[in-house]
Amino acid sequence: MLGSSGVLRRQQFLIRSLGVRGCSDRNTITNQKAMQGIMKFTSRPSLEADAESVLRAITPTLDPNRYKGQAGKIAVIGGCREYTGAPYFSAISALKIGADLSHVFCTKDAASVIKSYSPELIVHPILEESYSVRDEDRSFISEKVLAEVDKWMERFDCLVVGPGLGRDPFLLDCVSNIMKHARRSNVPIVIDGDGLFLVTNCIDLVSGYPLAVLTPNINEYKRLVQKVLSCEVNDEDAPEQVLSLAKRIGGVTILRKGRSDLISDGETVGNTSKHRRNCWYGCLLAGGDDISCDTLDDCELGSLPYQQLLSIRCMKLVNSVSIYGSPRRCGGQGDILSGRQVLISEFDVGVFLSWARQKIKDGDLSTSSRNPALLGCIAASALMRKAASLAFENKKRSTLTTDIIECLGRSLEDICPVG
Amino acid sequence: MLGSSGVLRRQQFLIRSLGVRGCSDRNTITNQKAMQGIMKFTSRPSLEADAESVLRAITPTLDPNRYKGQAGKIAVIGGCREYTGAPYFSAISALKIGADLSHVFCTKDAASVIKSYSPELIVHPILEESYSVRDEDRSFISEKVLAEVDKWMERFDCLVVGPGLGRDPFLLDCVSNIMKHARRSNVPIVIDGDGLFLVTNCIDLVSGYPLAVLTPNINEYKRLVQKVLSCEVNDEDAPEQVLSLAKRIGGVTILRKGRSDLISDGETVGNTSKHRRNCWYGCLLAGGDDISCDTLDDCELGSLPYQQLLSIRCMKLVNSVSIYGSPRRCGGQGDILSGRQVLISEFDVGVFLSWARQKIKDGDLSTSSRNPALLGCIAASALMRKAASLAFENKKRSTLTTDIIECLGRSLEDICPVG
Repeated sequence: MLGSSGVLRRQQFLIRSLGVRGCSDRNTITNQKAMQGIMKFTSRPSLEADAESVLRAITPTLDPNRYKGQAGKIAVIGGCREYTGAPYFSAISALKIGADLSHVFCTKDAASVIKSYSPELIVHPILEESYSVRDEDRSFISEKVLAEVDKWMERFDCLVVGPGLGRDPFLLDCVSNIMKHARRSNVPIVIDGDGLFLVTNCIDLVSGYPLAVLTPNINEYKRLVQKVLSCEVNDEDAPEQVLSLAKRIGGVTILRKGRSDLISDGETVGNTSKHRRNCWYGCLLAGGDDISCDTLDDCELGSLPYQQLLSIRCMKLVNSVSIYGSPRRCGGQGDILSGRQVLISEFDVGVFLSWARQKIKDGDLSTSSRNPALLGCIAASALMRKAASLAFENKKRSTLTTDIIECLGRSLEDICPVG
Repeated sequence: MLGSSGVLRRQQFLIRSLGVRGCSDRNTITNQKAMQGIMKFTSRPSLEADAESVLRAITPTLDPNRYKGQAGKIAVIGGCREYTGAPYFSAISALKIGADLSHVFCTKDAASVIKSYSPELIVHPILEESYSVRDEDRSFISEKVLAEVDKWMERFDCLVVGPGLGRDPFLLDCVSNIMKHARRSNVPIVIDGDGLFLVTNCIDLVSGYPLAVLTPNINEYKRLVQKVLSCEVNDEDAPEQVLSLAKRIGGVTILRKGRSDLISDGETVGNTSKHRRNCWYGCLLAGGDDISCDTLDDCELGSLPYQQLLSIRCMKLVNSVSIYGSPRRCGGQGDILSGRQVLISEFDVGVFLSWARQKIKDGDLSTSSRNPALLGCIAASALMRKAASLAFENKKRSTLTTDIIECLGRSLEDICPVG
């Protein structure tokens, strides 16, 4: 079982991550209990149910008594002269998952195009770019933009800031103000794309706000790490670095998108005198022994001090493409898909976050974590990977974001049937 | 076997093309070895695998280590007040084949329409036509347009210049500047439509640039031949004329679209003291004995000095419609389809060219040719013909370009499965 160097390497990493005494030398495994747990774990054929359970736990049942327009009202802040696709994908996928209403706040140029993509969306042409604003009007227009969003703010369960936002300085100034107001109103904020460009340069916008989620792709993540941790990306200890980053930004949740989705809220829980790491990460089995998909949970390593290292695994993608039979193909699929996924996995976070938050409020959630941002990321990652895998099964190399979005409904139904 | 005058004429042409000693008289065949090779060749029922092999060789495998955003970033320069369809077809088909990103640079009038066709594209409304530019602003606007494209230039793996570009003089001036910058940055340029109008009148834009591909249809080809070779189109010796044209423009690659796709880079390789012609051409079997589909490759005529005359053959189109049973019907189909193909076969060239270039850089290409432009044309021609034939099977007379584009994914999967 330990014949594969990839598996061994992963296990050694886990031992180090878990901080087991006597395991400081990565080439020596001495803690028998830890080893048993790990071996038990690596011999498990599939652990997808972890993420699927989270998804099922936070998805509201279709009970008419609970469903009076409470399935989520999401607003996307994005869409400018150049970019219209990303805010559309974001807003439409929220509806496809089951949100009630999906708003887009964008520039005038973008609005008519985004409206033309779908009559399902409510599109507000209120943002302005520098080129259309005279210097003497800036202050007035900035206030006007804020007022337009503000009058809706309390109705929103979540803002998604950044898809197709562009980098116009005046526009980003206005968006900063919107984010400050959202934070004051305790509205969760999912930040992606150019929103991350904004936040990376002004980390105070989200720092210490537990309802903020950052969803960086590999390049956005690199810039965040450089800015916040003043170091380079460390792929060897990727989960630990995500954890550090989340902690350093004061407990925001980070969903690092890529071949493996890494999710952490940097949480440290002291009440059981156990230093608990809520570092969830997903591994896509790629290239056979390259990455082994691991999960350590309470059951597996119950007596160890660090026990909350759990994985989300690309679910049906791994399941259906056979981990043990043809991992290379699976890895390839994952990568192809991640190219598209990078575009869209943030879109669902807002909806699932809202649902998780509602369930927690209602005292109706049985998950070990009570952080709706973390749970939202896990569910969104799981659903998106499943949808991407379904789309890929059908469309292969020609899979587009649109195809993946079309598979969201079926994927959700597969994991969490309405009946 | 030599009973048909069409076949005989073709063989004589091949002998002449190959420059076999003793064959200067086109009515005398004396070189026995050449003859054996040719007879062996003409008796082969089908050689489609040549083009399919090229396609398979240059299409990246779905290996996660290779697939990190490297599947191609294509930009289309085209789209004006009158034309919006062609640049859309070009850009969307790049994505359908598997490119990562597809940009369109067009006029403001065209941008919102092209955006509305699909949220998958990134559309930049930056080009200007004369009617919207005052004389005194021309220089300033021209520089601005160039700057807007230039800031993206290094990210692009290929530019496709011309689809729906129009012929406005100011706009074409700006596009000339863009092409010069692309050339300085060593970015491949595929030229079609009104881009060919521009290039025909200013051949220096591409002359001597091996990463330029011209994809003329029959009329555009005629104008090119008249301008560059100062003669009329010669259908009798069509492959030789394409070769001459490519050579005269300094080794650009020409894909002459039509019932048969003729592809040449005019290459002369001196290092083996063999004058090697990379004249690839595809024949669509039309009208029975009218055109015989021929291939001479290293295996067939290994000892001959000229050995790189290979054919691409319209694949399933010929295969499925029965060469021997009903050639006229097949030819009819070919004509219907070529009408559509003319519109779109350039679109894939950019993607395949980029892939071939990457494979060559990685030292990972096993084809006899090392010219990415040539290989890109072969693969694109093959894929497009297959997609056109699939679409035609389904839609018959009502086949539209959109239908063919919808068949790109399945066609690529048929030839080069991801698994």
